[in-house]
Amino acid sequence: MINKLLVVGTMAYDAIETPFDKVNKILGGSTTYTALAASKFEIDCGVVSVVGDDFEKKNLNLLKNNSINCDGVKIVKNAKTFFWSGKYHLNMNDRTTIETQVNVLANFNPIIPKYYLNAKVAVIGNLDPNIQLESLNQIKNSADFILLDTMNFWIEKNRDVLNEVIGKVNLISVNDEEAKLLTNTNSLLKAASLIQKMGPQYVIIKKGEHGSMLFGEGKIFIIPAYPIFNVVDPTGAGDSFAGGVSGFLCDKKKINFDLIKQAMLYGSVLASFTVESLGIDSLEKVTKNTLNKRLNDFKSITSF
Amino acid sequence: MINKLLVVGTMAYDAIETPFDKVNKILGGSTTYTALAASKFEIDCGVVSVVGDDFEKKNLNLLKNNSINCDGVKIVKNAKTFFWSGKYHLNMNDRTTIETQVNVLANFNPIIPKYYLNAKVAVIGNLDPNIQLESLNQIKNSADFILLDTMNFWIEKNRDVLNEVIGKVNLISVNDEEAKLLTNTNSLLKAASLIQKMGPQYVIIKKGEHGSMLFGEGKIFIIPAYPIFNVVDPTGAGDSFAGGVSGFLCDKKKINFDLIKQAMLYGSVLASFTVESLGIDSLEKVTKNTLNKRLNDFKSITSF
Repeated sequence: MINKLLVVGTMAYDAIETPFDKVNKILGGSTTYTALAASKFEIDCGVVSVVGDDFEKKNLNLLKNNSINCDGVKIVKNAKTFFWSGKYHLNMNDRTTIETQVNVLANFNPIIPKYYLNAKVAVIGNLDPNIQLESLNQIKNSADFILLDTMNFWIEKNRDVLNEVIGKVNLISVNDEEAKLLTNTNSLLKAASLIQKMGPQYVIIKKGEHGSMLFGEGKIFIIPAYPIFNVVDPTGAGDSFAGGVSGFLCDKKKINFDLIKQAMLYGSVLASFTVESLGIDSLEKVTKNTLNKRLNDFKSITSF
Repeated sequence: MINKLLVVGTMAYDAIETPFDKVNKILGGSTTYTALAASKFEIDCGVVSVVGDDFEKKNLNLLKNNSINCDGVKIVKNAKTFFWSGKYHLNMNDRTTIETQVNVLANFNPIIPKYYLNAKVAVIGNLDPNIQLESLNQIKNSADFILLDTMNFWIEKNRDVLNEVIGKVNLISVNDEEAKLLTNTNSLLKAASLIQKMGPQYVIIKKGEHGSMLFGEGKIFIIPAYPIFNVVDPTGAGDSFAGGVSGFLCDKKKINFDLIKQAMLYGSVLASFTVESLGIDSLEKVTKNTLNKRLNDFKSITSF
């Protein structure tokens, strides 16, 4: 039996400006990157999201062609897809959001297809904590392992519900700034310890180009990012990382610290492909061969 | 025979302010940290530096008590020791220099004791490139392996001589900002490649709390920093790292990429002790036992 992975989150159009390039409308959203990265594994991946009727059929087909089940994608008539526009600074690590058009996301009422209620692993992407809670309430007694993402905006705007959500998941994956903001501390070690006390057995802190850290079972694991000569567009790197982590874990029997370590290697490598092109282009082209080749490179770069 | 390590650089008094603590005058300087870290290895370490007659005897004795040969430390009468005053920001990674009193360093004319001219490894610390060149000219045909440090100030002020110096060393160890400034690029991979073309066979790029990268022999190695719960004072971390690297390499027969990788583990761990106290206190107390224990922790934290 092939295990099921559920990914709940956004599908979007992005406008992206970097010091070297610019696009006005490309496919984006956390679900898109996460599901595409996860689709590299031998699992059954289904997505739950919402788009407007401006969402192009070819974009939905792109996911379907990668064996991603889109039954949970609601298309709202006379409405527009979520839109995000951002500009990356010269260091390619910091970015400024220029515009966010929430559009259909404002009334997103996630309905998880019955078939995916008992997913082995569920990824609850960055969304209003109320929507995250609605998703969790549908799966909480049936999904095996739940991975959560969030962002600064929700930490500041809807903390109470977010706390409730965090209390219900197995693994939370946030970046360093978010971890500090969540816990009002400047030390990532302290932050991780405080977040674990909020509920999750495992905490991943992402540090962009500087790699990521895993905390759980009283242990710590730290890996650098896979080094990339030409970073073209960092958008979706964190979501691709989550896709690699969840995709790898999804076909494992019992998820533990050591397996999450391995999963992070895959997540890091998939994220490294993502940043090599604008949007999903480079991620979509990843094959089992190119993935394994880079994974071996990564191991040799970080082993002693 | 015990191999010799030569360390040329500054001995100083520092005034340090962090968000949590403040001291007006403590022992500092690159040579102090580098030699103390290197003294943890079974080598014969000699330092070359200059101080004023305000330099307290107990500070010199501290080095001597750690088996560091101070014959090369010149004490200038009626002059004051180099003084640096800095303030760390809340993230403990960024700092602002409040005051630099060059004092005796202005006329530093390094004379390397004959006994250390044929050192196995020489560390040329951050100094005016003219002074670095004077040191190099004394040892260049006799020392086996030369490690160089520099900083933004000299990259901007004395680039021509610095280039000449860089062309004469085996390994250069700089931080990420310095690497970018040296090569006018924003990519660390490109920077490392360009620096290698300037001469050094090996390049280490230090990223503070984010670890370090090694480039050489067509290979790359990346390690995180050893994670510290309570960073008290980051001063001297980079110099302690250099001390660990050079101390480890000093008793090896033929230095190569794989040995420098191992050396970086020691350098990282020694730096992690340094940041746990103001000044050298915590570094000085490191024993073979505590060093090896943390080294094993570090390996388990970064291995998969």
